[in-house]
This record gives sequence, structure tokens and C-alpha cells, in this order.
Amino acid sequence: MSPNKKVPESTISRLFAYLRELGQLIETGKSTISSSELGQRLNRSDAQVRKDLGYFGTFGVSGAGYDTRELKKALGKILGKDKVWKVCVVGTGHLGSALLAYSGFSKLGLKITAAFDTDIRKISKNLEGVTIQAIDELRTAIPRKNISIALLAVPAHEAQGVTDELVKAGIKCIMNFAPAALNVPEGIKVKNIDLSRELETLSYFLVNSD
Amino acid sequence: MSPNKKVPESTISRLFAYLRELGQLIETGKSTISSSELGQRLNRSDAQVRKDLGYFGTFGVSGAGYDTRELKKALGKILGKDKVWKVCVVGTGHLGSALLAYSGFSKLGLKITAAFDTDIRKISKNLEGVTIQAIDELRTAIPRKNISIALLAVPAHEAQGVTDELVKAGIKCIMNFAPAALNVPEGIKVKNIDLSRELETLSYFLVNSD
Repeated sequence: MSPNKKVPESTISRLFAYLRELGQLIETGKSTISSSELGQRLNRSDAQVRKDLGYFGTFGVSGAGYDTRELKKALGKILGKDKVWKVCVVGTGHLGSALLAYSGFSKLGLKITAAFDTDIRKISKNLEGVTIQAIDELRTAIPRKNISIALLAVPAHEAQGVTDELVKAGIKCIMNFAPAALNVPEGIKVKNIDLSRELETLSYFLVNSD
Repeated sequence: MSPNKKVPESTISRLFAYLRELGQLIETGKSTISSSELGQRLNRSDAQVRKDLGYFGTFGVSGAGYDTRELKKALGKILGKDKVWKVCVVGTGHLGSALLAYSGFSKLGLKITAAFDTDIRKISKNLEGVTIQAIDELRTAIPRKNISIALLAVPAHEAQGVTDELVKAGIKCIMNFAPAALNVPEGIKVKNIDLSRELETLSYFLVNSD
């Protein structure tokens, strides 16, 4: 089911949208759907739908459309939604605590199973059902708990050092909330969520809103 | 200095990058720069730089490049960076508290001057130098304090109701952290920061990382 060539991130995002839509269609009792109908529901052309799915093989029967349950199952597998992925939070300040308290993770198939902090006063405390560990324990705890995703919520000046440790511990994906560019080896995925960049463009809108 | 036509968001983002770069160039003592040199520093073509700036008029002298200080000043004005914009936080749970504690706002020209919550036990408490007010006070406090940006950190089911109040109070921009689509009248800017959407694509990467 692996794609033959690199799949654009925009395609991946749309596949998740198709998956959500299929879930709703199945709930309403719909058993088949055409690419044009699926596309219409998401403001996409049928060609777009077929192209996106085409990265992963052939789905559906020409003329008869897709079997909604089969397509949902296939997409779930392609997108890794048939598994639960383990997550750790690094840095348990305000943002880290917000991430630990965020209830949406389980719905996404993500399970927070560890939290790390450098502040010795926080170690062994329980936050949202997770016991905070010293950051030195990261190297052993991550492989032992089979954690593949890290949510990095440490100050900018600590971000690269912690990232190096996370990579050594076997982390595959880092979601970086620190306003710092991270260097990682090839094969490690970093997603940057930089609030500053998101926020700063607002001032342009305000100047031009009158 | 207002643009003649609608400027794409991607252009606005690049203008902020030019502005940051110009700040650094001025610090190193550079007084002029060509469009190709400025572009190179940000992996953009000189045509891109000229096109982006072209939305707002003519800058620099043909052959001599741009005066770094003049261009920085002009861009600052275009982007609204020459003013301080007042911000309120609505919802002071984990995420709202993280936003109140975020030290990067002042650097962006944003000043948090109010925080609102529905939880009566939190009212009048001080969080990061801001006194939490009852959400009912939003209608009077926002115009009185001249607040134009709201950071919305309430639960999804409260998001639209609070948004309606914010709009009535005169808010121009909402940064929405709730996983809910907001309906607002024309002329009001909403930026959605949906962590779930950002996070869910990670599982695809994990499946395909081996």
C-alpha cells in the first residue's frame, strides 16, 4: 500500500478529509459513492479525488464508484489511523500542560504516555494522569514505552539540545512549539507550530481593515 | 500606501520575512541592498521580491537597490508594525494561561490587556499581570480598552457564542484555538489554529517512515 512516489502534504491532508467524510457517509447508511460526489462534498473536482487516491493504487469499480466501507478501511490503513501512536510531552510549563490536558488526542489515535521536564520540583508529580519524569530519563523511557511522537514545548534556547536527545532515543516525529529552527537527521519529521508567525500577520489585516 | 488589489497571504508572510531580514542587515551596517541579494538571503528570486513590493508602490532606485532603513520603515508601516495592537484572551484554562504567559507578544507589537472567563472562581484573579474579568464585561471592556484582537481559547461548544459577543464588542481579528468553525460577518478576520489537523497528519508519516 506504500505509494510509488513522494506524496505531497496537500494530498495527505485531503486524504484525511476524505476519511472523515466517508465516516459520516457510512453513518448515514451510504454504501457507495462516486469520485465526483465525494469531491463535491469537499469542494474538490472528481479528477482531484482520483489523482489523490491514485497514488496508492486502484480503488472502486469503474462506473460503480467506491464502496464506502472498503475505501474508509483502506484509507485508514494508508494514513496510519488503524493504530494508536504513543506520544510524549517535553516541557510541562503552561503550553506543555495545555497539551497534556487536550482531550482531542485520543480521537486522533494518539496517546500521551510520558512527560518530561528539567525542573526538579516537578519530577514525580502527576499531570492529567501522566507522571512527570526527569529529562535525563528520556533516553531510556522513549524506547521502552515505544513512543514515536514528541511534542516539544521547551524554551527556544533548550529546543535543539532536547531534540538531539529525542532523536537518539528513537523519536520519529517532533511537533515543535518552540520558536526555534531545529536540525534533525534525514528521516525524522519536524512540524513547526510557530504562534509568533501566525500572529504577526494579523497586524497587516488590522491596518487594512478600515 | 494601501494596495490597489487584494494581496495574497503568502505575499504578506514574505513581507514580514523581508522586514526581519532588513532589521538584521541594518544591524550589520548595510545601508543598501538589491532585490536579488535580498531574495537570495531568503531563497527567493529577485522577481518575487519586486513583485511582492510592487503591490505597494515603487521602492528603491533602479540600479542602486533599496535603502535598507527606508524600506524597513515603509514595510513596517504597510504591515502595521509601527503600532502596538491590544489583545484579549478569552478562556483562561491551560491554553489561555499559556497564551497569557507567552513572552513573544510584545516583540510582535501585541499587548495583552484583558482576559475573560466564565468561571466565577477565576474572576478578579491576576494572571501574568492581567486581571481576569467576567465574560459579561467583554462588551464594555473591549471598546473601552481599544482592543482589536481576541485569542479565543474556550471549549468548542462555547466558541460561536463568544465569537458573536466579540464581534458585537468591535473585535477585528480572532485567532481561534477552538476546534470549531466560526461564522463571522464580512470584514472580521479569523485565523484558525487547529492542533488536531496539524497532529493527525503525523500518523501518515510514521507508517511510511521505515
